[in-house]
Amino acid sequence: MSENNEYTPPKVWKWDAENGGAFAKINRPIAGATHDKELPVGKHPMQLYSLATPNGVKVTVMLEELLALGHTGAEYDAYLVNIGEGDQFGSGFVDANPNSKIPALVDHSTDKPTRVFESGAILLYLAEKFDAFLPKEPAARTECLSWLFWQMGSAPYLGGGFGHFYSYAPVKIEYCIDRFAMEVKRQLDVLNRHLADKKYMCGDEYTIADMAIWPWYGAVVSNTVYEAAEFLSTHEYTHVIRWTKDISERAAVKRGRMVNRAWGDPSSQLRERHDADDFETKTQDKLEPDNNDK
Amino acid sequence: MSENNEYTPPKVWKWDAENGGAFAKINRPIAGATHDKELPVGKHPMQLYSLATPNGVKVTVMLEELLALGHTGAEYDAYLVNIGEGDQFGSGFVDANPNSKIPALVDHSTDKPTRVFESGAILLYLAEKFDAFLPKEPAARTECLSWLFWQMGSAPYLGGGFGHFYSYAPVKIEYCIDRFAMEVKRQLDVLNRHLADKKYMCGDEYTIADMAIWPWYGAVVSNTVYEAAEFLSTHEYTHVIRWTKDISERAAVKRGRMVNRAWGDPSSQLRERHDADDFETKTQDKLEPDNNDK
Repeated sequence: MSENNEYTPPKVWKWDAENGGAFAKINRPIAGATHDKELPVGKHPMQLYSLATPNGVKVTVMLEELLALGHTGAEYDAYLVNIGEGDQFGSGFVDANPNSKIPALVDHSTDKPTRVFESGAILLYLAEKFDAFLPKEPAARTECLSWLFWQMGSAPYLGGGFGHFYSYAPVKIEYCIDRFAMEVKRQLDVLNRHLADKKYMCGDEYTIADMAIWPWYGAVVSNTVYEAAEFLSTHEYTHVIRWTKDISERAAVKRGRMVNRAWGDPSSQLRERHDADDFETKTQDKLEPDNNDK
Repeated sequence: MSENNEYTPPKVWKWDAENGGAFAKINRPIAGATHDKELPVGKHPMQLYSLATPNGVKVTVMLEELLALGHTGAEYDAYLVNIGEGDQFGSGFVDANPNSKIPALVDHSTDKPTRVFESGAILLYLAEKFDAFLPKEPAARTECLSWLFWQMGSAPYLGGGFGHFYSYAPVKIEYCIDRFAMEVKRQLDVLNRHLADKKYMCGDEYTIADMAIWPWYGAVVSNTVYEAAEFLSTHEYTHVIRWTKDISERAAVKRGRMVNRAWGDPSSQLRERHDADDFETKTQDKLEPDNNDK
């Protein structure tokens, strides 16, 4: 690996599988399955295969919000996909999402099971299926979808750009950190100006645009990813901070962020979710951390 | 600028506006307008403010396809946004798209003009408005939208990642080129496997998923961006190449890629588009390159 000015790319790029860094097991230049493995299927209409990264949390929050509104058709089983172990390259997962990324949803309430992949597509699918969290008035619906797509096109600069080069890359490269820090600050400022006179992204109504944006940009300003709040001076984005706090306090959001979580405080982890009661057990864990005393 | 292993990021990132490289004029860490400038408004229902980058071409192709189907409500004026000169930071453009990126569409056929931003959102808006290029059968519609969102989340690794570090960055950084070359090859392989048994992304029907994906991935395999076809061994992706060629031959696509183009062969450039006849003049230019002879 060289980061000096004298590097000249070869005529033809070759995969050096031995030298792929910390992510060699999960980043590959080829698609498709590496091994046969069927996906488990539980009892509920919605089957989710995911992990509690920001993209995963978007969907578990949406499902919990739908259930909180009484949409029993949104009942779901959530299975953990361990991307560090290559679960996303199992044949069943690739059938559900040929892009081998979490989250993947399979709706078993349709005539034939329907696969839905890409977190933004899943949010839109569920919003339309249950007629919820997407404004009905045409101009408001359009604005909501513009912001939903904004999140999809912008967050790669936050996650695959800034987060990677600031936190995960094996070497700190000034040019890359500068490039992506500038872009992430611009994106935060876009949100901050927009939220200056609005409760939520689309006005007074909490929508899938909020559910898409909050897990990424809310995590940056509350310093729960990358530990970059000081570096990025996120205290400047006061409207984003207020909006983040409002959303964080929603009961469905608190539940959604626990699902498929496989790190942090054990009481914050609900690695698989198959029943609404699963959370109550975890909440008891949290209130009474030492269950052995009972 | 340093690319050696000893770089340690500061506690707090600061904008060095003087040292921003070739993109200093267009990349900023703050959002909002830099100057007052109203957007021009022409005579047609649809007003487009754009540039013939892949994201811009998505929308001009869609508008030309809609017009080819007879949807006169898709008639449009297309104004050039010179991003190198900062047109995207004019107050009128920021009102149309607070993210200051092309393309931005304003629909004047609605009660009040409706702004739509993000190329994927614009494609979906137009598909729903004119009931075209989006499958009606629910499972097929869902699949189409999954691929539409796939493109939005994937192309930043192609454009802002690979393209930037391979072609545009002031220094060639091996780690970055490796990282993004691997991901772009994976994405091309996702498409190649998917297209192996399909005419278009969603089967026999040409949809907005094709219109979103073709301008980016078709350009890579036909070597019209980044000059990286050999480097990425794009000849391997035979199904993507076949699909790219099929789409490139559509008359509406040939027109769409000319609109708001401000580089290359002058006869390929229709810098502003206000009338269907504008193309005929250009085609004559192309057949008779030396108009001074006439």
